Amino acid sequence: MKQHFIIIGSARALPARKISASELDHRLGLDPGWTAKHTGVLTRHQAAGPEEAERLAREVCFAALMDAKQTLADIDLIVDASLCVQQPIPCNAALIQKTLGAEARGIPCLDVHASCLGFVTALNVVNGLFATGAAKRALLVCAETPLVGVNWDEPESACLMGDGAAAYILEAASRDNPCSFRLETYAEGSRLCEVRGGGHRLPPMVYQEAHRRAYQFHMDGKAVHKLASQLFPPLLAKVLAETGGRLDQLDIVPHQASGPALEFMRRRLALPEDRFHVSIAEHGNMVAASIPYVLDAVRRRLPTGSPVLLLGTAAGYTQAAALFQI
Amino acid sequence: MKQHFIIIGSARALPARKISASELDHRLGLDPGWTAKHTGVLTRHQAAGPEEAERLAREVCFAALMDAKQTLADIDLIVDASLCVQQPIPCNAALIQKTLGAEARGIPCLDVHASCLGFVTALNVVNGLFATGAAKRALLVCAETPLVGVNWDEPESACLMGDGAAAYILEAASRDNPCSFRLETYAEGSRLCEVRGGGHRLPPMVYQEAHRRAYQFHMDGKAVHKLASQLFPPLLAKVLAETGGRLDQLDIVPHQASGPALEFMRRRLALPEDRFHVSIAEHGNMVAASIPYVLDAVRRRLPTGSPVLLLGTAAGYTQAAALFQI
Repeated sequence: MKQHFIIIGSARALPARKISASELDHRLGLDPGWTAKHTGVLTRHQAAGPEEAERLAREVCFAALMDAKQTLADIDLIVDASLCVQQPIPCNAALIQKTLGAEARGIPCLDVHASCLGFVTALNVVNGLFATGAAKRALLVCAETPLVGVNWDEPESACLMGDGAAAYILEAASRDNPCSFRLETYAEGSRLCEVRGGGHRLPPMVYQEAHRRAYQFHMDGKAVHKLASQLFPPLLAKVLAETGGRLDQLDIVPHQASGPALEFMRRRLALPEDRFHVSIAEHGNMVAASIPYVLDAVRRRLPTGSPVLLLGTAAGYTQAAALFQI
Repeated sequence: MKQHFIIIGSARALPARKISASELDHRLGLDPGWTAKHTGVLTRHQAAGPEEAERLAREVCFAALMDAKQTLADIDLIVDASLCVQQPIPCNAALIQKTLGAEARGIPCLDVHASCLGFVTALNVVNGLFATGAAKRALLVCAETPLVGVNWDEPESACLMGDGAAAYILEAASRDNPCSFRLETYAEGSRLCEVRGGGHRLPPMVYQEAHRRAYQFHMDGKAVHKLASQLFPPLLAKVLAETGGRLDQLDIVPHQASGPALEFMRRRLALPEDRFHVSIAEHGNMVAASIPYVLDAVRRRLPTGSPVLLLGTAAGYTQAAALFQI
């Protein structure tokens, strides 16, 4: 597959409020050290409310534009790949456009949803829209507030998630480097990570406090590990075969699923530790913002044109691996 | 823009239960004839519940496969462009994959969300994914149950919507015919069609019966007409200029927004009545399923290779026009 984009700017942002693992242990009555041990999280950030979340999304978009030395007048596509949407209708990208002000008026807006792999999937989508000439310069944003929807009776996930945002400016380009985007979904795992209520099967209008958990995030980390253990290695092998990529020559940005999940994946895939980029301890799992957040830091340290491998697992069960040049 | 897809199969489906406009008038205490006059709807269908909605989605996917003479083994992408999702996580396409059974296992799943213009937008996305070789044969599905989320105190929208589904099998192809996909979003209209509650700004977990309306669909049809009146003609002109298309030589499939909206758009754009395909009276506004539902009927009557123009307005405010060969 050809790479039809280059990253010309990016940015990341966190809410002001920082919460430590020991604070979480104390608040939830867990043994001291529980959160760090079971989630790998030492600190994570939490938005004070919808206003801060919206401000974060706006700031990260403008910071990415500034990084790219572009203005909104240069942008002809806004893609939002957040899992945490502000409201069901209209699409989140339209609400992002609104916060960006009148200069964003008219820019096509659409959302791409692939759970925690939204960024990787949206990058593949934008690559296609660049290939056909449907767009030339895109703003891709992931602004996540998972802490709104966690179940505090399930510390495995509640202590794991963190709020945060990242945005990218992508420009159409014709490149001949090896590139691959692979996504696979195995719906036998659809119940392993889910928010069951809030859609049309169990709408908000029948909400009852007694069924609160059905409307909150649920995760069975162990079962996801088990699926990933079988299914992920062949996917990675395909991407490496397609591109001729070698793991010891790549910077790897995994989805920050959890401390144990990252360590498990690194060992299972025999990934080199020094270029396997991890931020779970500082920020937790920021849903679809995790990969672009870490990638933003990585791309600032690497020369333009360096090959990177993005990989991860998500609700679905979905798994993805992508190899391209930054 | 090049067209990289051909439609090799399609299908449409409705729930069993049919409700007449006069029944709605009676139930809501409206003057006889109110629904027909204000929405253009004479009958619309309603799913009995989540089970029927799920069955409908499954049936329409298998019917499209049969129409295309393909099996799930031939499909390498499932895109769901429904606005009415079953649950917030995982993506709807993964839940569709689950209902299709074990043969769908492994097929990449993603959702594209652009309100009532989801189908048109997803077609553009698939066109791109075919152009890069990321996929070769896609199942694109819109299965909508808007009647779950209507506000019965707002008859303008509650009497307008209808449940229904459509699915398409798209195959990668290299064509040289004129093709164009244009989407534009003007977020100054983001409050004109919306469901405010149910996302992270106003989550289900703070639901109160007193604020029920915030979680239900709201539409200000007149204000949307006003925006569309200014903004839509230049968009259509661009698509016609890009493709050399002539309105009198095209079959036009508009989003079935409402009876008055369709008539307004037809007159405002001076569209020929005989090839402007309308189903609002029989089925109401089926959200993102409206365009593919009507297109399914249209493509069965037209020779392969006929040019069609899809157009519509949606929450966002978003508007789209697409011209391609069926």
